[in-house]
Amino acid sequence: MTKKIIYIHQHVKEAQRLALTNLATNYDLRWPSDDLTPIDLANIEILFGWPKELGLEILALPTHSLKWIQATSAGVDYLPLNTFKENGIRLTNGSGIHSIPIAESVLGMLLAHARVIRASVNAQKEKTWLTAPDYDELYGKKMLIIGAGQIGQRLADVATALGLDVYGVNRSGRQLPKFTAVYPQHNFLSALPIMDIIVNILPLTPETTNFYDTSFFDQTKLGAYFINVGRGPSVDTEALINALNNGQLSFAGLDVFESEPLAPESPLWEMAHVLITPHVSGLARHFSTRVTEIFSDNLAAYQATGSLVRNEIDFTTGY
Amino acid sequence: MTKKIIYIHQHVKEAQRLALTNLATNYDLRWPSDDLTPIDLANIEILFGWPKELGLEILALPTHSLKWIQATSAGVDYLPLNTFKENGIRLTNGSGIHSIPIAESVLGMLLAHARVIRASVNAQKEKTWLTAPDYDELYGKKMLIIGAGQIGQRLADVATALGLDVYGVNRSGRQLPKFTAVYPQHNFLSALPIMDIIVNILPLTPETTNFYDTSFFDQTKLGAYFINVGRGPSVDTEALINALNNGQLSFAGLDVFESEPLAPESPLWEMAHVLITPHVSGLARHFSTRVTEIFSDNLAAYQATGSLVRNEIDFTTGY
Repeated sequence: MTKKIIYIHQHVKEAQRLALTNLATNYDLRWPSDDLTPIDLANIEILFGWPKELGLEILALPTHSLKWIQATSAGVDYLPLNTFKENGIRLTNGSGIHSIPIAESVLGMLLAHARVIRASVNAQKEKTWLTAPDYDELYGKKMLIIGAGQIGQRLADVATALGLDVYGVNRSGRQLPKFTAVYPQHNFLSALPIMDIIVNILPLTPETTNFYDTSFFDQTKLGAYFINVGRGPSVDTEALINALNNGQLSFAGLDVFESEPLAPESPLWEMAHVLITPHVSGLARHFSTRVTEIFSDNLAAYQATGSLVRNEIDFTTGY
Repeated sequence: MTKKIIYIHQHVKEAQRLALTNLATNYDLRWPSDDLTPIDLANIEILFGWPKELGLEILALPTHSLKWIQATSAGVDYLPLNTFKENGIRLTNGSGIHSIPIAESVLGMLLAHARVIRASVNAQKEKTWLTAPDYDELYGKKMLIIGAGQIGQRLADVATALGLDVYGVNRSGRQLPKFTAVYPQHNFLSALPIMDIIVNILPLTPETTNFYDTSFFDQTKLGAYFINVGRGPSVDTEALINALNNGQLSFAGLDVFESEPLAPESPLWEMAHVLITPHVSGLARHFSTRVTEIFSDNLAAYQATGSLVRNEIDFTTGY
């Protein structure tokens, strides 16, 4: 009988590649360098990573073998979740491996602003020794982390060590270590006016689309910082731009945007109090090692008992 | 009898200004907005801050009353220490109040590089959505803090929380909390080749001038990061530039320079792996409040018993 195929659309280091081969002896492992026949496509049971065109081609086949997709991202909003659900295809994500780099990126963006490093980078281009009128510090500021999951909890750990006073928002309002208080998602606006820093790490779902709108920004502390390392469509970009222009926000560090890549005509590029990074806050040198560990753990369990032990997505909530 | 004068060459907030006035009823308080007669100059007993021209003018008087100078900086290498010593003038500094902002600036510079924020700032100027080939993280790196005083210990606290493995260097090799190991200043080079990040926070003394020379950089780990928030003359700039050009160092974050402001013709401005800030790592919004607290504590003790209770400089060591 023909072996089913695991298609690996993710860079895997040599040692892990060997380990995967030894683990999955009942499968054919295929890589982007391999040619795939139509019969191969129909035999792919497991995808590691989401090769969009290939994935949609498989789903369009009259009969396919696709049963499980291991995504490498934490957010899965860009995937055809309804199709997966209808086809009984299970989905796991890379949640957890982004905690360290994203927490570091958030701090990096905040410090680049507060410690005037961003302005110094621009001054260096001009060979100008330019001191600013005001050097701020993060110590003592109140930070609200909206989306207090694994990433938010890592951020709370490091922010607390820097002397910030950290508050969180999650679905239930369940209290968490390191947070002074955690509010439920449906009832946190009363805390908003005292927050110096607001960080969005919400997954994108129908509920969180346009979550940050004019009404939200109207209730922030005057001059608050806003960081978005969640998803772009959670923010009404026009409302954000207005809040920056009228001083309601004094800084925005944005890694994600309503439409990506950010269009050259977006006014955000030229705004003095906006720092733009190109949807990279989750990337790090150790990324491939860590996501492959998640995949390996799941693959071992999947082969042994059919279960997926790490990060399975619940299609009713979308995360 | 004419009251002696306290000359305050430092911004002091209104509430603290009032408190100082109430504390120092036996003195005349004078500010930069006041005119000073030659007789006033001869009557200045205490300087808060170092107004260089005025200070030298006082010291040149045949008879003066100067007894104590409260410097606002941590490093005091820019002051005429020998003249103070010969004149029996005591000196206190602002050590301690720079710990929080400097630790934040060091992290900010490191994250700006590792998380590719610096390159993103440059790309934003060009309205370019530019992802880099390699996003690094600080987590897990080994950091050597050379000069493990108050600032170094604050840096060790926050770096440890970020998952760095922190080592230190101080005069005695006395062990400190949060440091995996502390080496004595005369014997730490054996540890140098394993360090991913080297941070200079040494005060400038004859011993630490040109401390970072070709021989030092030859012994670093290939591709190490070097941060200088201490003093510029501790570094042989040519040796540093060579180490960056030959890859021995992959990044330098520099807040201080052999000569300041950094001259427009310095090659450092244009080096891709150099981040320049204009000697500001110790500045922060709360600076004046905190340095005035040190001055007030000292002034209260000085009036009561003639002692200086915070941060008196030992002229034999220079810090």
